[in-house]
Amino acid sequence: MQPRRIVLAYSGGLDTSIILVWLRETFGAEVITYTADIGQGEEVEAAREKALACGAAAAHVADLRETFARDYVFPMFRAAALYEGEYLLGTSIARPLIARGMVEIARAEGADALAHGATGKGNDQVRFELAFAALAPEMRVIAPWREWDFRSREEMLRYAEAHGIPVERRGDAPPFSMDANLLHISYEGGPLEDPWTEPPADMWRWTRAPEDAPDAPEEITIAFERGDAVALDGEALPPAALLARLNELGARHGIGRVDIVENRFVGIKSRGCYETPGGTILFRARRAIESITLDREAMHLRDELAPRYAKLVYNGFWFAPEREALQRLVDGIAQDVEGEVRLRLYKGNVQVLGRRSPRSLYAPELSTFEDDRGAYDQKDAEGFIRLQALRLATAARKRGPLG
Amino acid sequence: MQPRRIVLAYSGGLDTSIILVWLRETFGAEVITYTADIGQGEEVEAAREKALACGAAAAHVADLRETFARDYVFPMFRAAALYEGEYLLGTSIARPLIARGMVEIARAEGADALAHGATGKGNDQVRFELAFAALAPEMRVIAPWREWDFRSREEMLRYAEAHGIPVERRGDAPPFSMDANLLHISYEGGPLEDPWTEPPADMWRWTRAPEDAPDAPEEITIAFERGDAVALDGEALPPAALLARLNELGARHGIGRVDIVENRFVGIKSRGCYETPGGTILFRARRAIESITLDREAMHLRDELAPRYAKLVYNGFWFAPEREALQRLVDGIAQDVEGEVRLRLYKGNVQVLGRRSPRSLYAPELSTFEDDRGAYDQKDAEGFIRLQALRLATAARKRGPLG
Amino acid sequence: MQPRRIVLAYSGGLDTSIILVWLRETFGAEVITYTADIGQGEEVEAAREKALACGAAAAHVADLRETFARDYVFPMFRAAALYEGEYLLGTSIARPLIARGMVEIARAEGADALAHGATGKGNDQVRFELAFAALAPEMRVIAPWREWDFRSREEMLRYAEAHGIPVERRGDAPPFSMDANLLHISYEGGPLEDPWTEPPADMWRWTRAPEDAPDAPEEITIAFERGDAVALDGEALPPAALLARLNELGARHGIGRVDIVENRFVGIKSRGCYETPGGTILFRARRAIESITLDREAMHLRDELAPRYAKLVYNGFWFAPEREALQRLVDGIAQDVEGEVRLRLYKGNVQVLGRRSPRSLYAPELSTFEDDRGAYDQKDAEGFIRLQALRLATAARKRGPLG
Amino acid sequence: MQPRRIVLAYSGGLDTSIILVWLRETFGAEVITYTADIGQGEEVEAAREKALACGAAAAHVADLRETFARDYVFPMFRAAALYEGEYLLGTSIARPLIARGMVEIARAEGADALAHGATGKGNDQVRFELAFAALAPEMRVIAPWREWDFRSREEMLRYAEAHGIPVERRGDAPPFSMDANLLHISYEGGPLEDPWTEPPADMWRWTRAPEDAPDAPEEITIAFERGDAVALDGEALPPAALLARLNELGARHGIGRVDIVENRFVGIKSRGCYETPGGTILFRARRAIESITLDREAMHLRDELAPRYAKLVYNGFWFAPEREALQRLVDGIAQDVEGEVRLRLYKGNVQVLGRRSPRSLYAPELSTFEDDRGAYDQKDAEGFIRLQALRLATAARKRGPLG
Repeated sequence: MQPRRIVLAYSGGLDTSIILVWLRETFGAEVITYTADIGQGEEVEAAREKALACGAAAAHVADLRETFARDYVFPMFRAAALYEGEYLLGTSIARPLIARGMVEIARAEGADALAHGATGKGNDQVRFELAFAALAPEMRVIAPWREWDFRSREEMLRYAEAHGIPVERRGDAPPFSMDANLLHISYEGGPLEDPWTEPPADMWRWTRAPEDAPDAPEEITIAFERGDAVALDGEALPPAALLARLNELGARHGIGRVDIVENRFVGIKSRGCYETPGGTILFRARRAIESITLDREAMHLRDELAPRYAKLVYNGFWFAPEREALQRLVDGIAQDVEGEVRLRLYKGNVQVLGRRSPRSLYAPELSTFEDDRGAYDQKDAEGFIRLQALRLATAARKRGPLG
Repeated sequence: MQPRRIVLAYSGGLDTSIILVWLRETFGAEVITYTADIGQGEEVEAAREKALACGAAAAHVADLRETFARDYVFPMFRAAALYEGEYLLGTSIARPLIARGMVEIARAEGADALAHGATGKGNDQVRFELAFAALAPEMRVIAPWREWDFRSREEMLRYAEAHGIPVERRGDAPPFSMDANLLHISYEGGPLEDPWTEPPADMWRWTRAPEDAPDAPEEITIAFERGDAVALDGEALPPAALLARLNELGARHGIGRVDIVENRFVGIKSRGCYETPGGTILFRARRAIESITLDREAMHLRDELAPRYAKLVYNGFWFAPEREALQRLVDGIAQDVEGEVRLRLYKGNVQVLGRRSPRSLYAPELSTFEDDRGAYDQKDAEGFIRLQALRLATAARKRGPLG
Repeated sequence: MQPRRIVLAYSGGLDTSIILVWLRETFGAEVITYTADIGQGEEVEAAREKALACGAAAAHVADLRETFARDYVFPMFRAAALYEGEYLLGTSIARPLIARGMVEIARAEGADALAHGATGKGNDQVRFELAFAALAPEMRVIAPWREWDFRSREEMLRYAEAHGIPVERRGDAPPFSMDANLLHISYEGGPLEDPWTEPPADMWRWTRAPEDAPDAPEEITIAFERGDAVALDGEALPPAALLARLNELGARHGIGRVDIVENRFVGIKSRGCYETPGGTILFRARRAIESITLDREAMHLRDELAPRYAKLVYNGFWFAPEREALQRLVDGIAQDVEGEVRLRLYKGNVQVLGRRSPRSLYAPELSTFEDDRGAYDQKDAEGFIRLQALRLATAARKRGPLG
Repeated sequence: MQPRRIVLAYSGGLDTSIILVWLRETFGAEVITYTADIGQGEEVEAAREKALACGAAAAHVADLRETFARDYVFPMFRAAALYEGEYLLGTSIARPLIARGMVEIARAEGADALAHGATGKGNDQVRFELAFAALAPEMRVIAPWREWDFRSREEMLRYAEAHGIPVERRGDAPPFSMDANLLHISYEGGPLEDPWTEPPADMWRWTRAPEDAPDAPEEITIAFERGDAVALDGEALPPAALLARLNELGARHGIGRVDIVENRFVGIKSRGCYETPGGTILFRARRAIESITLDREAMHLRDELAPRYAKLVYNGFWFAPEREALQRLVDGIAQDVEGEVRLRLYKGNVQVLGRRSPRSLYAPELSTFEDDRGAYDQKDAEGFIRLQALRLATAARKRGPLG
């Protein structure tokens, strides 16, 4: 069945403008655009105007920055999620939020289809469409990049010109595919496609190079309550504002650049570069406050599940029962995370200087090498070790020693 | 039964010298010392002389640096082991090696007991004794710190003086408990017992502070073959020499300092500071070469098991069937790790600049945003996503959408 | 410090009666007994009288059957917990409940110590004492079996006689160590210590042998709501009553005998025989209703964590943050478990005949081999498979095929 | 590109005969059939003749029974693999073997395409095609069920008649989709599509109903060496013969029927019934011999990974690096599995009577409740428990007790 009303994830850029027109032409449908401010640093009002100029039947914009930080980024950080040991999932975590916003608009507007501008090679198509399936399985999904017949960039540009869509000159566009939000900026493609070549120095938009960061270190204190960061240097801040401030600090000190080859869900290895200045600081600070407030076994359990949680987010399974199940586990563990962490920022380094907490499980009377006044009886260790060793010793006795 | 011949892990320091004498006096037994050079940077021959001076019946020294790097450190790095997200296990990995050396000497010398100088509060006692249980379950284990009656440092010092053991003046001794080898130096105790306080700047023995590191970055290339690092800047090096060279580089550039509160196996949270300059570079370089040579799912499997492997090593279960089982898994996965990684070292940062491999799985023809000449059919993504989504859509249809 | 008031877990049997007297004599302390009815099938009032006769300062009895079934057994079943693939954890799950009851009484009575009658070789001592540590770390724990000087059963019996404790004649006592509650009966020791020997036929107290079970099968229906079993053959029943009814059915039909060699937490392999008639039926029924109501990935996640949850319960970590974290995960997943399961019971077999649910995720329109009217597009499978295969094909192309 | 020579997985049945003809007609290609005897109980020579009669350019048959049992079934059993807690993976494990055979023939015959008769809704298409991708990524894959235009069974039958393919009358064909091999028979579809309805009694082809099994139990002994079953009742037997004998025994005693709703890889819940008589006995026997020969932690590690291994096999990732990595882990652990298990078979029950091994880790001197002459010091348990409890007690002291 032909779609009559399509909600399109619209950035205001050239590609989604072409899609807007193409959807109208191809399906004879009304197109309603949806542009979310998730901290990408571009004016969403401009996108609204451009959408209407391109023939959108309606153009919605929404400020999702607070929701993004509070309900997506922070829960993910509780899980200590890091994809393939390095990537803080800045793009991955934004897609389900945008998808949810689109579905809400589609319901409100009586739309029957959802469209996005992600290509058929990447992860974002999956993230959008898995969210659509979970939230609005009745709606048709349109992924123009997988459907249309343009065979080259040049054809697309001719189409844009023929339809009056403003086109930047080629030389002005960066040679990278980029994505930005409150958590990060990502870069893919172009010169990055050779994983042996260093990214050009002028690629990075947000952070200074460590070499260009100030020679003077800067010290900060982050406070946590009920599992989340709540204040910076004594000033209480809601999640988005806190993240924004950490971004400024991290960017100034050359913190949070990552350059990896990662495994996409669709089976392709891909080189990606990321700047996550505030997230990198926050990730480090969390570990530090967790180290004195989390139980050993609870934390180890969470840490063993963290790669799996990260993979779910990366692959687009945010609105999925298994992610929600893991979230419950993670949130329960996080509830005791409270206290302060002191950090030094210096030329790419985030150094933990100290951590303290009213809910600390650190017991100096146990760990001290000085007289502990009986808090710990060293003789207990003998029995502990002997029973830990019993199965090993039994096997060695019965079968001969290992090796 | 009384031990007649005891093999003692002997460092040449004051504490193990006191133990040497105490064992002789307490058990009326012969004491044979064992001192291994695992790169701690102290002269083992001096330990031999001191041992004999303290009444040792025999004093063995062994150069285990190559064995340490090749058979302990490198296999552990194949597992991507990181305890509690931060600690590269420098002390943990050395203990089983020393224990094995002691057992060999004990067998050769006809000894019937094994003794070590680890306290009853720490992890090292467990690591030594689990190894003893697996390798020599018939031997008696003596842990003087858990058995003797000294109630204070002062009593020990008086005992030393009374028995002619040379004592450094108090002021000369560092206020930390330290351990060093080819992989790291660790610091515990003293002023570190307050986790809110920054370690004193002069504590660190090995690495420069990032602030004091050279202003000029340095670029290096590490090569890997059959799963392990084999060359630096084109020069083939055996494991120990390679690690030593990376240590020099890392130390110069302020790389590898870690300051954490960790969970000991005996149930105590403890603050530890570590310098692992070469290991930090190596860990980073491995991830980079793995990123283009490991299969996604094999690597993810390894990464999910890495915290568990790290916990086994930390807790002392090196000579245990479950560690050996994980090692087989990990070694199998590592066999394809081959190629080169370029890195930039600068003031605490290890930045990956590029990676390449004759066994690379990176396929530029797949990942490119340019014309891929049919290497990848974007239409495949539609079916892929639809079936990934099917269970989510079915649930949403039958029970209503999530959220 | 000497204990003044001790709460003792008291069964009313000979051993705990000896302990009662021994505690009074050894510590000069008041002993308060605690006897819980958890469905062991013995009269707790008799225990009260015997306790007082043995000199208890007070004797508490509590009917915990409903609490046991609802707050311990049922949550554990939500986790699909099975220790070492076979054992339904009947003893393990009862210990924390009894420990909690003891702590409550101890607080109410102003006691300062807790004592139990578990030996130093088994798991129960650990389960009791870990619960005590989590719930009442300030109280002293007394484990008489680990402390007293009796060197043989005969010495204990002489002690009993000397103190007027009634002793059964040796021949009357079963040669097994037994434990019974609403979930199971366990047998250890005696002739079972040879794992090659079949248990004597007259050991089993509860279930008939399959050979002696009725020749006629019996069919039953169990209903589930909000994650738990709630009704049998249409009759709503609270957890304990439901479990009791399933026990009768299972016992009649020879269901639920298990004979294993298991690994105790203290490092010993031990042969245990168990009768869990109702639990075995319930376990099977749960899997069946889960099969149509749980999401695939959520269930698989739960199933991968189930051995770990089981190990925690077995080892005594019920009141531990990691068990609680897993419980949250498991409970979240279980919330959709609802519907009915039909089962046939016959000579040891529990055969699932059918399952249905108003919250079923089973979609006959998808699975049918008949015309599905477009519910599923077989062409989607092609893209699905091609992208699943992409990493395998890429590796084969670049490195040559496997094998 | 058009295929010129196609190797087809050919059963000799109606459907693959239609496919044979359809491939020839559709592609104008030569079709070479491949029929493997994996113990399905049908004459493969008949398939050869039928293939040639249907116009095959060549018809290969291969007896893979021994390979199947030794290199596929037995390795999988070492992993304790059970999909969704119930399914022994009888069909899943056969597909990669057949795929490998097809690839070998294709290479030998210079074919350029591979075809199979699995539908677009099931798991088998995935299993075939993932194996093809790993083993022969250069070959085209043809899945006629996903490509042709037949819209109904009737159309297919008319096509068959029009092309002279012999057609059984409808009434003669079972209403189920079936698959048989040395490990199992499976049933899907038809009346099974309602998961509330019991399967018809005459569906089961192999096993008797428990009700119809002999009234007299039968006792057997299975011996294991180097990780695998090697003898039955003292008679050494190679894997396939051993499995065949266990199948006879199991079938006679009503053992191994399973009726489940399972989750297919393509996202569909599906009802499947399985008969796995010998496999069920073997699975049980393995657990018993493992219980005395495997180290606790190694076995627990294996058991936690077993659901994951099972999922890989079920989903078709046999020739995948992650399955191979798990296999190495599992095989290493299995190497000590040796000894004998006595079992009683009776009306659907497989009861373990005893297990013994020259490599047993069971130590009666440790587990005994009698005097153990000092093999185990009960006082060790105190220290063991106190340190296990330390983190729980510390948390309770610092934050107040749980609950």
